[in-house]
Amino acid sequence: MNKTAYFNNAATTFPKPEEVYSFMDSYYRQSGTNIGRGGANTGSNLIKETRNLITEIFHCPNKKVVFVPSATEALNIILQGLTIANNFNIYVSPFEHNAVTRVIGYLQTKYKLNVKELEVDKNNLKYDLEKIKYQFSEDKPNIVVISHASNVCGILAPIEDICTMSKQYGAVNIIDMCQTAGLVEIDLSYDIYDFNVFAGHKTMYGPFGIAGFICSGDISLKPLIYGGTGVDSANITVPETLPDRFEVGSQNILAVAGLNASLKWIKTIGIKNIFKKERENHNRLISLLHKYDNIKIIGECITNEGVGVVSCIFDGYSSDNIGQILNEHGVEVRTGLHCSPKAHKFLNTFPEGTVRFSVSYFNTDDDFEVLKDSLDYIEENS
Amino acid sequence: MNKTAYFNNAATTFPKPEEVYSFMDSYYRQSGTNIGRGGANTGSNLIKETRNLITEIFHCPNKKVVFVPSATEALNIILQGLTIANNFNIYVSPFEHNAVTRVIGYLQTKYKLNVKELEVDKNNLKYDLEKIKYQFSEDKPNIVVISHASNVCGILAPIEDICTMSKQYGAVNIIDMCQTAGLVEIDLSYDIYDFNVFAGHKTMYGPFGIAGFICSGDISLKPLIYGGTGVDSANITVPETLPDRFEVGSQNILAVAGLNASLKWIKTIGIKNIFKKERENHNRLISLLHKYDNIKIIGECITNEGVGVVSCIFDGYSSDNIGQILNEHGVEVRTGLHCSPKAHKFLNTFPEGTVRFSVSYFNTDDDFEVLKDSLDYIEENS
Repeated sequence: MNKTAYFNNAATTFPKPEEVYSFMDSYYRQSGTNIGRGGANTGSNLIKETRNLITEIFHCPNKKVVFVPSATEALNIILQGLTIANNFNIYVSPFEHNAVTRVIGYLQTKYKLNVKELEVDKNNLKYDLEKIKYQFSEDKPNIVVISHASNVCGILAPIEDICTMSKQYGAVNIIDMCQTAGLVEIDLSYDIYDFNVFAGHKTMYGPFGIAGFICSGDISLKPLIYGGTGVDSANITVPETLPDRFEVGSQNILAVAGLNASLKWIKTIGIKNIFKKERENHNRLISLLHKYDNIKIIGECITNEGVGVVSCIFDGYSSDNIGQILNEHGVEVRTGLHCSPKAHKFLNTFPEGTVRFSVSYFNTDDDFEVLKDSLDYIEENS
Repeated sequence: MNKTAYFNNAATTFPKPEEVYSFMDSYYRQSGTNIGRGGANTGSNLIKETRNLITEIFHCPNKKVVFVPSATEALNIILQGLTIANNFNIYVSPFEHNAVTRVIGYLQTKYKLNVKELEVDKNNLKYDLEKIKYQFSEDKPNIVVISHASNVCGILAPIEDICTMSKQYGAVNIIDMCQTAGLVEIDLSYDIYDFNVFAGHKTMYGPFGIAGFICSGDISLKPLIYGGTGVDSANITVPETLPDRFEVGSQNILAVAGLNASLKWIKTIGIKNIFKKERENHNRLISLLHKYDNIKIIGECITNEGVGVVSCIFDGYSSDNIGQILNEHGVEVRTGLHCSPKAHKFLNTFPEGTVRFSVSYFNTDDDFEVLKDSLDYIEENS
C-alpha cells in the first residue's frame, strides 16, 4: 500500500490544496527574501494581502491580524500578556488544549486564580447556557477561554451566546479557533470577541509555521518575546503598535505564501461549500463507525453541532494498539490524549485516551475504503 | 531588470541550494503530516536525522539540539529561562542584536543587573583579551552573551578565548551564531559553550521557520511557552526532558525538511569550501567598494577576521536614500540599524545607520556587475 488513508486532519490537514504547494515553491524560489529587512516590497505586499484575506474571511475589516509561528505561541502571548490579578475568575470550556491548560496552570503558580469550567451537559453534550448565565452571575468572569470546536470530540461551542453574556461583566473573551478557522462561517466583527486564535496549518489548509490572532487592539498585552521587529530599531523595547509588538524576528514569508494561497482557495471554493463537503465526510465517517459493535463513539455530537473530529474506543484494545494496527493497514489517526487531558477527564476517557478520526475536505472514496477494510480486520480479530 | 542582485544575505540567504526547494516541496506533498500526533514515523525520523546532522556539523554528538521557530525565540527562551539574581554581571559584546539587547532590557525591569560590554579596541576592531580578562577579574561574569559575528560589520569574536576565561568564573556562556552557523568551522563539544543559537534561514541556507539552540542540558531553564508537546500530555506542565520541554506546539516539518536538505548540502560541499567561496565574494565586495571615494566602509575587518557583512556610508546621502536608489537599480541591501542599535553606537553610526552589503556562497559575476553599475551611477550623481 503506497498511499495513506489520512484521518488525522485535526492534527494538521493533509493534503493541502495544490495551489498551496505550488505557490509556496514558486514564491520562495523567486522572492525568498526578508521582509522589512531590505527592499523586498513584494514580501510586504504579500503579508498585507494575507492579513486582508483573513479579515475578509472573518468579516472584520477593522480588526488587526497578528502573525506568530504557532497557535500555541499565540495563546501564550495572549494569556501571559494580559493584566491579571489575584482572585480573577477564569472560565474555560471542558475541552481546552494544553496550549491553554498549561498556560493557565503556569499563571496559577503566580496568582491565586479561580479556574472554572463552563457548564456542559454530559448527557446530550450541549453547553448549558442557563447554567453558564448563573455561573457568571455568581462569580463574575474576568477571562473566558473557549475552544470553538473540541479537538477531541468536535463539539462546537455557542461562542456568540457565551461571549455576549460574559462581556456584560467586562470579561476578556479568547476563542481558540484552531479546529474551525476557515471551516465554520463566523463574523468576528463583534466587540464581544477580544482575541480569536487561528492555526494556519489546520482548518485553514495552509502550511506549518504560520498562525496568529485577530484582535481589536484595545486590550494591551505585555510582550512575551523581545527582539528585533525591523522597525523602530532604536527603541529599547518592542514597539507598542500592532502587529509589530508581537511579530519579532524574521517573518516566515514561505509560510505566509502558503497561507495566502490557501486563503484564496478558501475564498474560491467558499467556506460554506468546504464545510458542506467536510460534513459529508464527517457523516460518512460516523455512519461507518456505527456499523461496528466493537467501536464506541465518545462524545458523539450531531454533525450540525460539531466538526469532523470523532473519538472512539475499541472493545478489548487500547487506543495505542488500534493506532498501530490502523497504521500497519495504511490508515493514519491519532491516539491517546490529543494534548487535551481535561477533555478526556470530562468524557471519562482519562487516562487511556481515545482513537481519534478526523476528516477534511479532501478525504476520498479510497480513504474510506481503506478505513473500512481496516475496521473489518480489527472486528474479525477481536 | 528581472533578477535582483542580492546583497542582503545577512537578513536571509538567497537563493537557497536547489536541494532545499525541491526537497521541501516533495517532502511536504508526500509526508506533510504531524509529528508525534499520529503515526508519522517518517517525520520523526526526519527530525532525528536533522538533529544528528547538526551535532555532526558542530562536532558535538553528546549535546542536545532544540528546535524552535526563530533564533529570536531561542534567545528569549534561554535568557528569560535562566535563573537570575540581583547584581548579576552580564557581559555582552558591543554588537548584540535586539533579540539579545531587548531581552536583557526586559530583565533589567525585573532585576538590578550590571550589564557591561566586552572590551573591543575601536581602532583595529579587535576584541581586547587582556582587558576582558581584567574586566572579568574585577566584576565576575555571571552571564556572557556574544554574537559570534556581528550582523552589522561582520567582525568575528574570539569566542573560545573569551568563553574559556568566563567559564573559570562559572559564567553561563551564550553564543549567537546566526551569522556563522554552517559557515565558520567550529567545535562545540567543549563545555565552555552552554548555549549556541542558530537560525536555519541564514548561514545554514535553510528556510524560515526553523532555528534553535545546542546545549548540554546541564543548565535548567524555566519554560517560556507552555503547551502541548505530543508526549506526556497528562502532565500539568511541560516535561522536564529535552528537547520536548521547549518544542511545544506542532513541529514545523516543512521547515525541518528544508533544513535537512541544506545541512546535507553543507556536508556535501564542505564548510571550509563554503567559507572559502563566501570569503572570495567578501573580498570582491570590499575591493569593489574601495574603488569609490564617496563610500566609506564602517568597522572594516580583515576578511579572515570577519564574515561577508560590510557596512558603509555614502557621502551626501542617507542610508535609506542609497537603499532606495540601489533597489531601483536591482540591488537588494539592507539599510538603517539592522536591529542592532548598540553596534551602531559603538561604530559611531547611530542613529543614521549604514548601508549593509552581505554576500553568500551564491553571489554571481552578474550580481557584482549590477552592483558596480549601480555604484557608478551613484558616484556620477553625487
